[in-house]
Amino acid sequence: MSYQKLVERFQQIHRIDHAMTFLSWDQMVMMPERGNDARSSSIAELASMKHKLLTAEEVAGWFDNADASADNLQSVSLREMQRVWRQATCLPADLVVAKIKAGSKCEHGWRTQRTANDWTGFVANFREVVELGREEASLRLESNDKLSTPYEALLDLHSSGDSQVLIDGVFKALRKELPGLLVEIREHQASRPPIVVAGEFALAKQQALCEELMRVLGFDFSAGRLDQSMHPFSTGVAGDLRVTTRFRNNEFIEALNATAHEVGHASYEGGLPAHLEGLPVGAHRNMCIHESQSLLFEKQICISKSFTGFFAERIHKHLEDSKNISSENLWQLMTKVEPGYIRVEADEVCYPLHVLLRYEIESALINGDLEADEIPEIWDQKMTDYLGLSTKGNYKDGCLQDIHWTDGAFGYFPSYTIGAVNSAQIFGAMCSDHPDWQSRFASGDLDFVREWLEDKIWSKGCELTSQELMRHATGQATNTDAYLGHLRARYLEETH
Amino acid sequence: MSYQKLVERFQQIHRIDHAMTFLSWDQMVMMPERGNDARSSSIAELASMKHKLLTAEEVAGWFDNADASADNLQSVSLREMQRVWRQATCLPADLVVAKIKAGSKCEHGWRTQRTANDWTGFVANFREVVELGREEASLRLESNDKLSTPYEALLDLHSSGDSQVLIDGVFKALRKELPGLLVEIREHQASRPPIVVAGEFALAKQQALCEELMRVLGFDFSAGRLDQSMHPFSTGVAGDLRVTTRFRNNEFIEALNATAHEVGHASYEGGLPAHLEGLPVGAHRNMCIHESQSLLFEKQICISKSFTGFFAERIHKHLEDSKNISSENLWQLMTKVEPGYIRVEADEVCYPLHVLLRYEIESALINGDLEADEIPEIWDQKMTDYLGLSTKGNYKDGCLQDIHWTDGAFGYFPSYTIGAVNSAQIFGAMCSDHPDWQSRFASGDLDFVREWLEDKIWSKGCELTSQELMRHATGQATNTDAYLGHLRARYLEETH
Repeated sequence: MSYQKLVERFQQIHRIDHAMTFLSWDQMVMMPERGNDARSSSIAELASMKHKLLTAEEVAGWFDNADASADNLQSVSLREMQRVWRQATCLPADLVVAKIKAGSKCEHGWRTQRTANDWTGFVANFREVVELGREEASLRLESNDKLSTPYEALLDLHSSGDSQVLIDGVFKALRKELPGLLVEIREHQASRPPIVVAGEFALAKQQALCEELMRVLGFDFSAGRLDQSMHPFSTGVAGDLRVTTRFRNNEFIEALNATAHEVGHASYEGGLPAHLEGLPVGAHRNMCIHESQSLLFEKQICISKSFTGFFAERIHKHLEDSKNISSENLWQLMTKVEPGYIRVEADEVCYPLHVLLRYEIESALINGDLEADEIPEIWDQKMTDYLGLSTKGNYKDGCLQDIHWTDGAFGYFPSYTIGAVNSAQIFGAMCSDHPDWQSRFASGDLDFVREWLEDKIWSKGCELTSQELMRHATGQATNTDAYLGHLRARYLEETH
Repeated sequence: MSYQKLVERFQQIHRIDHAMTFLSWDQMVMMPERGNDARSSSIAELASMKHKLLTAEEVAGWFDNADASADNLQSVSLREMQRVWRQATCLPADLVVAKIKAGSKCEHGWRTQRTANDWTGFVANFREVVELGREEASLRLESNDKLSTPYEALLDLHSSGDSQVLIDGVFKALRKELPGLLVEIREHQASRPPIVVAGEFALAKQQALCEELMRVLGFDFSAGRLDQSMHPFSTGVAGDLRVTTRFRNNEFIEALNATAHEVGHASYEGGLPAHLEGLPVGAHRNMCIHESQSLLFEKQICISKSFTGFFAERIHKHLEDSKNISSENLWQLMTKVEPGYIRVEADEVCYPLHVLLRYEIESALINGDLEADEIPEIWDQKMTDYLGLSTKGNYKDGCLQDIHWTDGAFGYFPSYTIGAVNSAQIFGAMCSDHPDWQSRFASGDLDFVREWLEDKIWSKGCELTSQELMRHATGQATNTDAYLGHLRARYLEETH
């Protein structure tokens, strides 16, 4: 009875989430500029109604009376409801308001301070964001006795189930191996001739090409769309998945990579268990799993040698000016490794090093071992150590480049790299079950990958914890073996 | 204090309406087919939350305590809030549910019964829709002592402020004049040579052409968009107006007419008083005024001789295959009069006759003077009398052609024709203030029309009742003089 009431309340909240999801999609993809104020007010109204429904007094009573010893599905469903509910109720309203105010002030300032390389102006706002982040972390830590540090309480918002011990272990291994591997790979690639992409790539033709890629990847256009937006993203619900990408008219690789990445995210959402729709137990597991799916589609599948060998012909068919780029050249373009300042432009070898330094800085910041004012110095030092690039005095391409910290979203960065590590591990397990994967990719056959992922990952929703899920799919907890092995094989031995 | 609480509640409801508006737009314009179930559930959830907020017990108390003798704006604001609130509260919940059930069953059946010319199947469902419509009408009549018949209580939902006496007067005059005028016009046009539109009109080029028309009509693309949909419509809010049209690739006139029509609706919404946004007093007056604005843009402006003279060149610029159609030919095409079976395809001379027969039938139906089973016979008789076409045995092009009655939306049809009549009357008043209108249209100058409409109509919201508004804008209550004069001048004297 109490459980059934919780189910109804969460399903009601899900219908409000649906509304917010598509209003936000429209805001980013379709809405004319003068529509923004009314749209933001409407979304805020729905968020407030949702919060009231989730934190209403009767909900606590339903949790007290719900039978957690019922069948297994009901008890894990309750566990996941409680997780969502605890995260929504453990902060006092005045802290939430203070966070939103300080965060939006800091983010608003950052939009011009970044361009102006103005660290002093930024840090004046940012100190309060850090203070409130620490306060939030310590309250969240108190609310859950499974957590051991304030920073872990923020990690838990995005990487629920992946402990700080596990995440620390991953980063420790990467810190040890990656900088040396990067040097080796750079030497190995030094003899590659430069390949130039030049020409006019009309947006309508790139759209058609990206839609063809999506069809090859198994995307169903009766249950989703592809549009353009400033930053590629994926949102929606099963049956109505909204993928976006962006196009440049002088090159086409960025749009293809972004499309593949977002199709990975969308495929996961589309494959979640339909019979649990609207309940927390039927949702995606955490961002480390979500990101593993997007990277699996983007990096493991779409820039593999066998797939680029297959897909080059489709690119040539759609884009006249791409014909001088052979499938071998295409693969070399897509696997070129080169350290740079900017995280979002990084290749799969350098990317984890960008995340590593952010992880080290934000965990120290939240746990009280580092102050906001010390960031530029430590950023420069770590960029020099890990990537051989100094950011001294260059804040805009250094510690001011990301939006995440500006509104206090600490604890998100690690999911990018745990996702990459999971991705290689999951893909490796899939390949063990399908040793002929390369010949199948070479003929454009990818259905078996979707079936495998749906069975092992997507259809599980949140029934398993993240590490139960990794063990179920790969036989092991998250670890760096597969990822490092993948990098060596692809970038030194050039096997795939 | 109580008034302020009402203001806050209505503004909150407005933010929920915003969400429903754009979710519905997306459903009709963007959503892939498999998204429909989840979307409908989400919209229904918001509608239910809105209904609860509007009909909550405290609201009645606020109305009791609000000071209606305060300043004029507050008292008309209260009047309009009460109108909305009474319409939402005067029906018992079980009747609302029964109406939705019977209506959606009947509409669902109609979608195949119409094609199959199956009146017997249709009327089996439709009898209950009529019964419930009568019940609704009698309850609405009881709730408002300004209404005199059950049918007027349904008219009031769409034509609020325009009494049945006034509407009867309009239709009486049209019944007397139009059939004869139609014969005269047909004779006058008999000598026109046929003009053939032939060619390929690419959709992307038609889109660009329609956007150009919108710009000429003063539409601001930083505050709105043009898209395609199955049936053209306009929705949104000031700052974010969503207009749709549809394209055929073998002709271009339908898309232009539909675009102009919807821009009229959108311009009215965009010109409503910004300082009253979110309150009933700041909304559009009624559907007779709304339709007057769409028809003013479509019929009074865009198919006038002076405007087609100006715009033909733009059409030729965008559409290669239109170049053999001179501006004179274009005007003849757009003003061709020819009776037909289908209301939505009718020209401005025939259209009111289609509405007249529906008005006579639905008012008799709701007032209990006619039964559902008698409709086909009376339909055939009136079509023969008014338009010289028999629909005997031809239900699909007769009484089964419209969607309106299937779910019980009785009382809507008249607003199309009162709108047309208002439109000519309002346009006539505008022309009196700007006697040089034709030379200005001929150079594409339309800003003065928008300024005049904004001043006289749009900026008034619901501060005036509909007939106060007509008198304010035109010096007279709604009457057919201007409309009949317009038809004679355009179709017999060919002055404009």
